[in-house]
Amino acid sequence: MHINQIDTPAAVVDIDKLEANINRLQDYLDQHGVANRPHIKTHKIPEMAHMQLRAGAVGVTCQKLGEAEVMAQAGIRDIFLPYNILGETKLERLMHLTRRVQISVTADSEVTVRGLSQAARREGTTLPVLVEFDSGIGRCGTQSPQETAELAQIIAKSPGLHFGGLMTYPISAHVDAFVAETKSRLATAGLPVERISGGGSPCMWQVHEHPAITEHRAGTYVYGDRAMVKSGAMSLEQCAFTIIATVISRPTAERGILDSGSKTLSSDLQGLEGYGLILEYPEASIYQLNEEHAHVDFSPCPRKPDIGERVTVIPNHCCVANNLFNQIIGVRGEVVEVVWPVAARGLLQ
Amino acid sequence: MHINQIDTPAAVVDIDKLEANINRLQDYLDQHGVANRPHIKTHKIPEMAHMQLRAGAVGVTCQKLGEAEVMAQAGIRDIFLPYNILGETKLERLMHLTRRVQISVTADSEVTVRGLSQAARREGTTLPVLVEFDSGIGRCGTQSPQETAELAQIIAKSPGLHFGGLMTYPISAHVDAFVAETKSRLATAGLPVERISGGGSPCMWQVHEHPAITEHRAGTYVYGDRAMVKSGAMSLEQCAFTIIATVISRPTAERGILDSGSKTLSSDLQGLEGYGLILEYPEASIYQLNEEHAHVDFSPCPRKPDIGERVTVIPNHCCVANNLFNQIIGVRGEVVEVVWPVAARGLLQ
Repeated sequence: MHINQIDTPAAVVDIDKLEANINRLQDYLDQHGVANRPHIKTHKIPEMAHMQLRAGAVGVTCQKLGEAEVMAQAGIRDIFLPYNILGETKLERLMHLTRRVQISVTADSEVTVRGLSQAARREGTTLPVLVEFDSGIGRCGTQSPQETAELAQIIAKSPGLHFGGLMTYPISAHVDAFVAETKSRLATAGLPVERISGGGSPCMWQVHEHPAITEHRAGTYVYGDRAMVKSGAMSLEQCAFTIIATVISRPTAERGILDSGSKTLSSDLQGLEGYGLILEYPEASIYQLNEEHAHVDFSPCPRKPDIGERVTVIPNHCCVANNLFNQIIGVRGEVVEVVWPVAARGLLQ
Repeated sequence: MHINQIDTPAAVVDIDKLEANINRLQDYLDQHGVANRPHIKTHKIPEMAHMQLRAGAVGVTCQKLGEAEVMAQAGIRDIFLPYNILGETKLERLMHLTRRVQISVTADSEVTVRGLSQAARREGTTLPVLVEFDSGIGRCGTQSPQETAELAQIIAKSPGLHFGGLMTYPISAHVDAFVAETKSRLATAGLPVERISGGGSPCMWQVHEHPAITEHRAGTYVYGDRAMVKSGAMSLEQCAFTIIATVISRPTAERGILDSGSKTLSSDLQGLEGYGLILEYPEASIYQLNEEHAHVDFSPCPRKPDIGERVTVIPNHCCVANNLFNQIIGVRGEVVEVVWPVAARGLLQ
């Protein structure tokens, strides 16, 4: 089947570029002796996770229990879930996973640690728990090395738990001093920090500048998107994930409407102007989205598209765009090679 | 099952409110003699479409062929697809639908009309085609009454097609004069305008101020959301659709993190501040989203939430939030009565 036989809007992945992206990061991390633990939230597709593992990843990272369950069902045996797992239902699901999978999680509070400890003790297992610390972006995480070291010691003393190390996102200049002070505090307490897990795709080529980092979690690198290109971590040519759309209306000389709206591209701006880059019309601006319509200003383009013309859009944020599709079309050149169900999307946390 | 047994994040619909919303708009449109043709893009759930039909709707509106196919498979027999259907694959699917369903579509260009005519002629059917005109929002649609009347006449003369009337979105002050002039031009040409289809939920209580409108398409009214409340068309208490979330981290005295990010609430701002309203903490601000994290500033709240606490979020835009879930939980009071698969999401256009 030729790519032109795929109806629009469709999410298409160039398999050659996908493989190159997987190998490029793996080679870099191998070269610097850092474990690669890719984040599957970008693709949510078991076969892609297996491609990453075959290339040399030590395991995968999932953001939700539902994603971890899908990956476990696909035969993946080493899963990191860097999230505060809270509540009886989720703790029970997590414990069920420990029976089949080597799984580690994170905590940034005693409340989370207490729940994990009770569940693991009841299960009769030992669960590795890493402390999440705030890299400076102000999301989750302990706020100081002192707080981090204290929580690590609470984990180490909690029945059923093993202190598994430190986790943060993204790696930043802030991280090195934070980790050094935390390690020093924990050394005094006689507690080794066996694993320091950093994350992020835009910063992935700077991992070697942070020698304390022992593993890296990148998600977006597998596809690439407009935000990644803006960050300088990938080139436009390396972007493997595109949305094929059709120009369905040309109501005025300057305006065109595509069949790819906020339910296709998502409304994520990621600090960019417009909602995506049209490869065939790079000067055009996708200035507004409705659910199934993209409003495009083609006025700066020397040639304007015809109604019915197909265009290729690099979305701002591939992770949320991928999550809007039931299926991703895998192409080699212009030939459809595989249709992947997005197995781990839309599930319960 | 009690609602508190549902794990988070979850999309929950209050069935009593849903029914009241369905009946309220139906009663209003009945009172003014306007046909009700609700837009199913909001819920994408066949049973809800049947609820709308049972209340008195003349048929449904779909935005994508995939949605129309799902509704047809659920036994719905009158479907309006107000979209330019282009390309052989889609035209063939549309023709297959005409065999089982009374279906009408729109066009805003001769290119669209030509494709529809060829397909309908080949199929040996007569397809009603309405002309989409621009209500003033600058999306699709013909730009002037003259252009509209010309396209209507082209449709009327095209083999396999029947000129079905006019369509626009949303209804606005601009619409009345536009319709009057178009009708007058078409009267001169001897072409009656049998159906004038307006759309939009925020403007739904103004339909009677536009006597030319013969049918109305509203989608969001069925659920309600923060944008609808801001528009004044619904009250907060009427909102039937909520996201249940858990506070998974309280890294600082002021900040809290919920387990509902851009893959749960969507990044749609709809001109609002923040990404949703937390009913239990109305002063709080959801100021940033990551994929599975909402960053919340609880500083203006007299009481701050505990880690593990469940909260209820009214999203900015229910249509895109609903589209992010595989299932919607229907509750009556606090009891789970039904779990609806979102059957028409993530499909091909």
